[in-house]
Amino acid sequence: MNESDLIARYFAPLAGPEGLGLTDDAAVLTPPPGCDLVVTADAMVAGTHFFAEDPPDAIAAKALGVNLSDLAAKAAEPLGYLLSLALPPDWTEAFLAEFSRGLGEAGRAAGIGLLGGDTVATSGPLTLSITALGAVPEGKMIRRSGARPGDLLYVSGTIGDAALGLALRRAEILRGAPPPWAGAHAAELIDRYLRPRPRLALTPALRAGASAAMDVSDGLIGDIRAMMRASGAAAEVDLELIPFSAPARAALAADPSLLDVTLTGGDDYEIVCAIPPDSAEKFEVLASAAQVAVTRIGVVAARESFRERDGTARHFARDRFSHV
Amino acid sequence: MNESDLIARYFAPLAGPEGLGLTDDAAVLTPPPGCDLVVTADAMVAGTHFFAEDPPDAIAAKALGVNLSDLAAKAAEPLGYLLSLALPPDWTEAFLAEFSRGLGEAGRAAGIGLLGGDTVATSGPLTLSITALGAVPEGKMIRRSGARPGDLLYVSGTIGDAALGLALRRAEILRGAPPPWAGAHAAELIDRYLRPRPRLALTPALRAGASAAMDVSDGLIGDIRAMMRASGAAAEVDLELIPFSAPARAALAADPSLLDVTLTGGDDYEIVCAIPPDSAEKFEVLASAAQVAVTRIGVVAARESFRERDGTARHFARDRFSHV
Repeated sequence: MNESDLIARYFAPLAGPEGLGLTDDAAVLTPPPGCDLVVTADAMVAGTHFFAEDPPDAIAAKALGVNLSDLAAKAAEPLGYLLSLALPPDWTEAFLAEFSRGLGEAGRAAGIGLLGGDTVATSGPLTLSITALGAVPEGKMIRRSGARPGDLLYVSGTIGDAALGLALRRAEILRGAPPPWAGAHAAELIDRYLRPRPRLALTPALRAGASAAMDVSDGLIGDIRAMMRASGAAAEVDLELIPFSAPARAALAADPSLLDVTLTGGDDYEIVCAIPPDSAEKFEVLASAAQVAVTRIGVVAARESFRERDGTARHFARDRFSHV
Repeated sequence: MNESDLIARYFAPLAGPEGLGLTDDAAVLTPPPGCDLVVTADAMVAGTHFFAEDPPDAIAAKALGVNLSDLAAKAAEPLGYLLSLALPPDWTEAFLAEFSRGLGEAGRAAGIGLLGGDTVATSGPLTLSITALGAVPEGKMIRRSGARPGDLLYVSGTIGDAALGLALRRAEILRGAPPPWAGAHAAELIDRYLRPRPRLALTPALRAGASAAMDVSDGLIGDIRAMMRASGAAAEVDLELIPFSAPARAALAADPSLLDVTLTGGDDYEIVCAIPPDSAEKFEVLASAAQVAVTRIGVVAARESFRERDGTARHFARDRFSHV
């Protein structure tokens, strides 16, 4: 099967009209009038960002999902995406069939099609890069840099599930046995790791009130710090307010040392944002209408503090995941 | 050096204002009014698309150049680009310094900046994917599919230099000795392989008259066939009209069997296009004004033929390079 046949069989069916059936040099799309374009790219490598043994449809959905999560953090509506795929020597058609099925489903869930890309051979591990395009009303992209002292800090969903899921998945694959803290919810946590749920539904709430936003991909603590650095401010976070799921709470109860994993492990693909106090009610109402849980975890201030329940400061030796 | 430091040192200086210093989740750009967006992505892997020993600045310039060549073929003006870079275990800062210098120069030559991207680690070979964005007046993108019988077929520049350059480079690296046909122009041919020159200057000429266009990346014969397939037509090509450079002519004189290499080897990054006869004069005048040589090599017809000087038909066993 040559490159053209492979594209025609597995990827052309995912192309929207702008993708021209993936038979041209480029895609063409008319940007929505009065909008700015929001553009992001993320790469994933087997063995670094996922396990080669992960389900192919989940690998694809994750590669797209992490990019859609960036768009969601900017309150952008997705327009389309491009995929660069480097296939290792042992790729199979069965892999590509499942991979493209997962990619198509994830794209359809976000209402977008494949615009183009490239498929190449590599002697190394499976490597993917996706570029996603989105749109926001002109001048309205929510940046990381707009947080101001006094703004409230919110986070969507729950934190740490995917990092715990990764630890469970790693134990399953590399050691063949679950860690001692794995409970009845292991499969749920692993699923959170495998299949990010980009928070595109939060867009109306963010547009109504956020002064700054960012997606939580590399660890909540480090990502909050990155947003605060961009804003020239600092975060005061009440650690006890950070939302955990029932599975994560059970794991933390079994092994309290996992707290650092949940707060710095990354792969959450939730949104952390700063909301000026007079917009907080509207933000909460719109988030609730979108059925996205949001939790106030602190406030933007002049000096950083991460406080425990008893008021003592907590320090993080390693605050986020670095991909290099 | 962590991911943020690496981006700050080597890539943030290449970012245009839309890239927000590469410190946000995404770039934001206001599309030019009245324009469509043209988007393309190409990936390159060390050992497949280039040699790991190639100069780092040339690797970078080529990765961007092959994408700009796609935009040039669509008569699109470049707006910006994103880079996904997977670094192998032996990457060095010296490599990144040269790589980012070459990327910056290639971007500046096209008048564009870096919009964003991702840097990750791989256990495999150096892998790059670039997505390039461009703009064309609304509805005016030149597709592969618009060629009609009677249109004249043109190609820009000269064909085969890069394929011969690749053969020379391969001999140099893998065998440590030049092939028997390598002449005084070997360095020139290798340079054509290492440093594509995207034909962005041809945009006014293409907009004035082309019914279809495509960049020649995978071999002239196969690329002409791809454009004709998209157009539901066929090409009649006079092989003796295909333009060769003096270095390529010298190589072909020394070893006539290299003709297939020049016509099917790829990496030319020239433009092949179809021009209705009544637009041909304007097309030629505007190409000449842009200082891009264009050569008429045949005509769009109902049945394919690639004819030698004496009128005999030539068949190509393998018509293009496939990357999978």
